Amino acid sequence: MNAPIKIEDLEVGYEVPAIAGMDEGAIQTPCLILDLDALERNIVKMGDWAREHGVRHRVHGKMHKSVDVALLQQRLGGACGVCCQKVSEAEVFARGGIRDVLVSNQVRDPAKIDRLARIPKLGARTICCVDDVANVADLSEAAVRHGTTIECLVEIDCGAGRCGVTTTPETVEIAKAIDAAPGLKFAGIQAYQGAMQHLDGYEDRKAKIEVAVAMVRDAVDTLKTCGLDCDIVGGGGTGSYYFEGTSGVYNELQCGSYAFMDADYGRILDRDGNRIDRGEWENALFILTSVMSHVKADKAICDAGLKAQSVDSGLPVVFGRDDVEYIKCSDEHGVIADPQGALKVNDRLRLVPGHCDPTCNVHDWYVGVRGGKVETVWPVSARGKAY
Amino acid sequence: MNAPIKIEDLEVGYEVPAIAGMDEGAIQTPCLILDLDALERNIVKMGDWAREHGVRHRVHGKMHKSVDVALLQQRLGGACGVCCQKVSEAEVFARGGIRDVLVSNQVRDPAKIDRLARIPKLGARTICCVDDVANVADLSEAAVRHGTTIECLVEIDCGAGRCGVTTTPETVEIAKAIDAAPGLKFAGIQAYQGAMQHLDGYEDRKAKIEVAVAMVRDAVDTLKTCGLDCDIVGGGGTGSYYFEGTSGVYNELQCGSYAFMDADYGRILDRDGNRIDRGEWENALFILTSVMSHVKADKAICDAGLKAQSVDSGLPVVFGRDDVEYIKCSDEHGVIADPQGALKVNDRLRLVPGHCDPTCNVHDWYVGVRGGKVETVWPVSARGKAY
Repeated sequence: MNAPIKIEDLEVGYEVPAIAGMDEGAIQTPCLILDLDALERNIVKMGDWAREHGVRHRVHGKMHKSVDVALLQQRLGGACGVCCQKVSEAEVFARGGIRDVLVSNQVRDPAKIDRLARIPKLGARTICCVDDVANVADLSEAAVRHGTTIECLVEIDCGAGRCGVTTTPETVEIAKAIDAAPGLKFAGIQAYQGAMQHLDGYEDRKAKIEVAVAMVRDAVDTLKTCGLDCDIVGGGGTGSYYFEGTSGVYNELQCGSYAFMDADYGRILDRDGNRIDRGEWENALFILTSVMSHVKADKAICDAGLKAQSVDSGLPVVFGRDDVEYIKCSDEHGVIADPQGALKVNDRLRLVPGHCDPTCNVHDWYVGVRGGKVETVWPVSARGKAY
Repeated sequence: MNAPIKIEDLEVGYEVPAIAGMDEGAIQTPCLILDLDALERNIVKMGDWAREHGVRHRVHGKMHKSVDVALLQQRLGGACGVCCQKVSEAEVFARGGIRDVLVSNQVRDPAKIDRLARIPKLGARTICCVDDVANVADLSEAAVRHGTTIECLVEIDCGAGRCGVTTTPETVEIAKAIDAAPGLKFAGIQAYQGAMQHLDGYEDRKAKIEVAVAMVRDAVDTLKTCGLDCDIVGGGGTGSYYFEGTSGVYNELQCGSYAFMDADYGRILDRDGNRIDRGEWENALFILTSVMSHVKADKAICDAGLKAQSVDSGLPVVFGRDDVEYIKCSDEHGVIADPQGALKVNDRLRLVPGHCDPTCNVHDWYVGVRGGKVETVWPVSARGKAY
């Protein structure tokens, strides 16, 4: 207690889990790591698919909440812009240099509408969704007040059961109101079938999407007869993009999880009955964790619990190992079944998170690794931006 | 797009959900709010109980991760200090002015051990747990290197099935090694029965704790015959503190959730068969959420999903209302069953989170409210400090 206090004792803390150039073994756990090679291959692959099929890809930034990843998706994957779910996220992406931002969600609170209407001043095309004609006047007034334009998509509920209208007459009514409102521009339709993305069977997903496509086609055709063209017909996710992207109706995909992958998505099956994380997409995101106790012979305790991940879609999977299994998660601990006693204290494991989106949202940093070295440390730029 | 850009357009974002003095209705949702009256009553009540029963209360800071709440627990509740689960959390509490900090967990990584050994220089008594004699030399070397003292508790696994030894001879072996090691001081025993806290029945919890108390008593008595006195015999949580606190063996409680309460803890029953959130403790923590879509007559969609909470212990409960129910949670949306159509867009609800600890860990701020006004905004100081 009598040693002199130096600034480094006070100021050098765990503000980052790693720095560039560090060996992977020196990263402080638990933290998120990105396999940059795998990430780049995923991004290029989806970009190629979209280009070859003549559809735009607006990447879903709500998954990673990272300006750096979004910019990479534009550079390597030809993404046309970003979608996200909150005005506070859209602000982060617009400030970070993304020039085309869709809030793929309703914006109803007056303070949020005011913020949304300012985003075009940051230099970004600004789009949001509308599912209630009563919302149109509020959006219009804010845009006029700030001298900006908010583009609006009518949101169709094509099966997710959350926001969105369910009939073409409602869609047309809202579209006409948008078209007539000063400060707003009618830009098309948002129709994301979220409830189907995680169905295991390819044909099951296809059947659900066919219903969605029929709803959307009817809306687009009817709007056209009213003189309203849809610049954007958006939807599609990692479990369905090939359906929307070849439908002839959708022209913009909104995939998110493909870039990182997770255990829950990985289990769904492609057309040939293979898991999509065994060929279609690579696991690029991991929770790096260390063994911190191994008093019981058949159980290792690791340092990644509920504060390092979300288990809403199941427990994480230990990557690349069949001999050990993550079997229980408490606040700060994970229990790893280790029947052969293969692990020892301070051994490290890569965990594939059950669900990438809410897992990314509990971390402040992505540690990008390549060839055993830390290449970059990116902030989770819009982390916690839920409001 | 041609309006002049002002600094306020660039810089004023959603960095905080509220400011002091604001009406509660102007808080940006979703965010965490604290009912300060209820929080203060909970803190005083537990402090009074501990004082009346002659035991110390070391509050569990891993629950709230807030320096401000911990300082309030010292001032109003007479807390003797804080426990937490990570070295990075301990750094935050020590820097924030807490003078007695226990990492109620193992510290095994060399970099983490080095950081732990520096914490005494911040002016805080620094304590950690040990469950493996192989850890003693590493802790000792780091303390000697920094000219500090780390106090050590032997962790006993009294039923949680995670870290900790399970026999008295192991406890004695580790205690003797600590006692003999330069830079370390043997300080006692850590014996938290975490697996029992959430059993609904009072008698069920009591039976589990009786086993734990017997294990701990045997260890304490045996250590005494070896000349090793336990300054700290720590354990106990919101579901059991009255058992440990009256055991005659434990002398330090480590309760966390009592201060905020949550839906999962609220359901357990007291001695008289009443839920503990109906008299014993008050709900002080809420997720404030707004209705953002109500296109379907019987369903309101609110803005608090998986990125505003953890659902590991169940869905949140709408506070103070029997007419509506939170029935489904996706990334950014919650579905509220509203069979009577009682809600409208922009209505606000207070949600009691399923599990407070990991829910607090996704938020950056606590908005403290009293009498309909925002009284304070506290950072979640150690948020994300998992590594």
